[in-house]
Amino acid sequence: MSIRIVLVGTSHPGNIGSAARAMKTMGLESLWLVAPERFPAAEATMLAAGADDVLLQARVVPDVQSAVADCGLVVGTTSRGRHLPWRIVEPREAALEIAAAAQSSEVAILFGNERTGLENEHVQQCHTLLTIPTGTVYTSLNLAMAVQVVAYEVCLALRDRAGAEPMRGDGPVPLASAAEMEKFYGHLEQVLNEIDFKDRTNSGHLMSRLRRLFQRTILDQNEMNILRGILTAVQGKRRRAGEPHVRTQERNS
Amino acid sequence: MSIRIVLVGTSHPGNIGSAARAMKTMGLESLWLVAPERFPAAEATMLAAGADDVLLQARVVPDVQSAVADCGLVVGTTSRGRHLPWRIVEPREAALEIAAAAQSSEVAILFGNERTGLENEHVQQCHTLLTIPTGTVYTSLNLAMAVQVVAYEVCLALRDRAGAEPMRGDGPVPLASAAEMEKFYGHLEQVLNEIDFKDRTNSGHLMSRLRRLFQRTILDQNEMNILRGILTAVQGKRRRAGEPHVRTQERNS
Repeated sequence: MSIRIVLVGTSHPGNIGSAARAMKTMGLESLWLVAPERFPAAEATMLAAGADDVLLQARVVPDVQSAVADCGLVVGTTSRGRHLPWRIVEPREAALEIAAAAQSSEVAILFGNERTGLENEHVQQCHTLLTIPTGTVYTSLNLAMAVQVVAYEVCLALRDRAGAEPMRGDGPVPLASAAEMEKFYGHLEQVLNEIDFKDRTNSGHLMSRLRRLFQRTILDQNEMNILRGILTAVQGKRRRAGEPHVRTQERNS
Repeated sequence: MSIRIVLVGTSHPGNIGSAARAMKTMGLESLWLVAPERFPAAEATMLAAGADDVLLQARVVPDVQSAVADCGLVVGTTSRGRHLPWRIVEPREAALEIAAAAQSSEVAILFGNERTGLENEHVQQCHTLLTIPTGTVYTSLNLAMAVQVVAYEVCLALRDRAGAEPMRGDGPVPLASAAEMEKFYGHLEQVLNEIDFKDRTNSGHLMSRLRRLFQRTILDQNEMNILRGILTAVQGKRRRAGEPHVRTQERNS
């Protein structure tokens, strides 16, 4: 099983090179070229950058039938404006189908010529059509860009299917526990009282605003320690500075 | 409100042109260029195709601060390999945050130089980092391709948001801008000096730790006002309490 990108009647070899690079970044390496205008070509190799192996292994065939003959699922990419009596889905939905089909079958994703797109006879080969959503003003997506977007969605769908867990940005510092957060909020409120901080929002919900802010942040334990240290420093400085005794009766414990 | 693409230190003008086209296909038109190596350039205009108006209106600025000063949300794009102690999300998740923030605020999405990516000083300006998932073998996504993928996800998120229920009541509170955040960090550092707060982590990176914490939080303007008010209250209380005069020469204004 594999997923192949099929470029049909491509005019500019540079787009073939850029498409090869786009594919490879997303883990796709099988490229088929149906009657390209010029290939191989120096411009293609240059734009492929580190994906020149995809170009070297590309299969060049004379017609779409030859490119999809052994495929269990054929998806054609079309631009938005075309009205075809075909099921048309967006890349995300198509990618799910593609990833599912690739478990058992060869899958082809077709991209037509830069200006004319897939011809009707090519569309006839497809099981499903795919349209990349765009803004409304300008819809002229470059061919290799279209390959990039579709390959990106296929990459995500394959990964999700494999059950890979998403990347994590943060290191392994444990998060502050709910109990630690409560102690922090108690400490913060105490300090705000001690410095006579007035709630200028007049909402009467100062602590709940602050709580929302810090809950959303999801503090780790190091950060919690820094914040607690700052609160303690505020208190220590005040007391050393000869502040009268804290009016304990005013503190809402 | 609008969403701007910020290309930082771009080497190849062709990538600027392709990025402009990629943006416009997805309905984004605000392009900012931070210290591009060559711009304007014929190659940029050629590759922009019908998106040359995006290039004509592009803002060229000398540094990242100038590009994000009025932005309430700043998202930085980084490659997969980098280990930064920052929240890192994928484009789909980032796009939801971007579309939400754009309801009330200016949003910037940063893309670094083709080879070196965003530098650490640029990352410090960001609230969130974004990494485009790739296959495992080859991860060298072209700059304009990265813009295309992110713009595609933003386009979908904006569309989905527009299709959702209209906002209720008063709109969301605008986010604190990057310039306001910088003032807050200056104020915080000043107060920490005044209270002689010692960095017990001994890492020597107290302010960057605190910056990371608050950048991640994405403060709105009300919350910013509360935090500034607390800092001012700490200062006022200290001074009223007979603290010796503030060593003004130490204050970083």
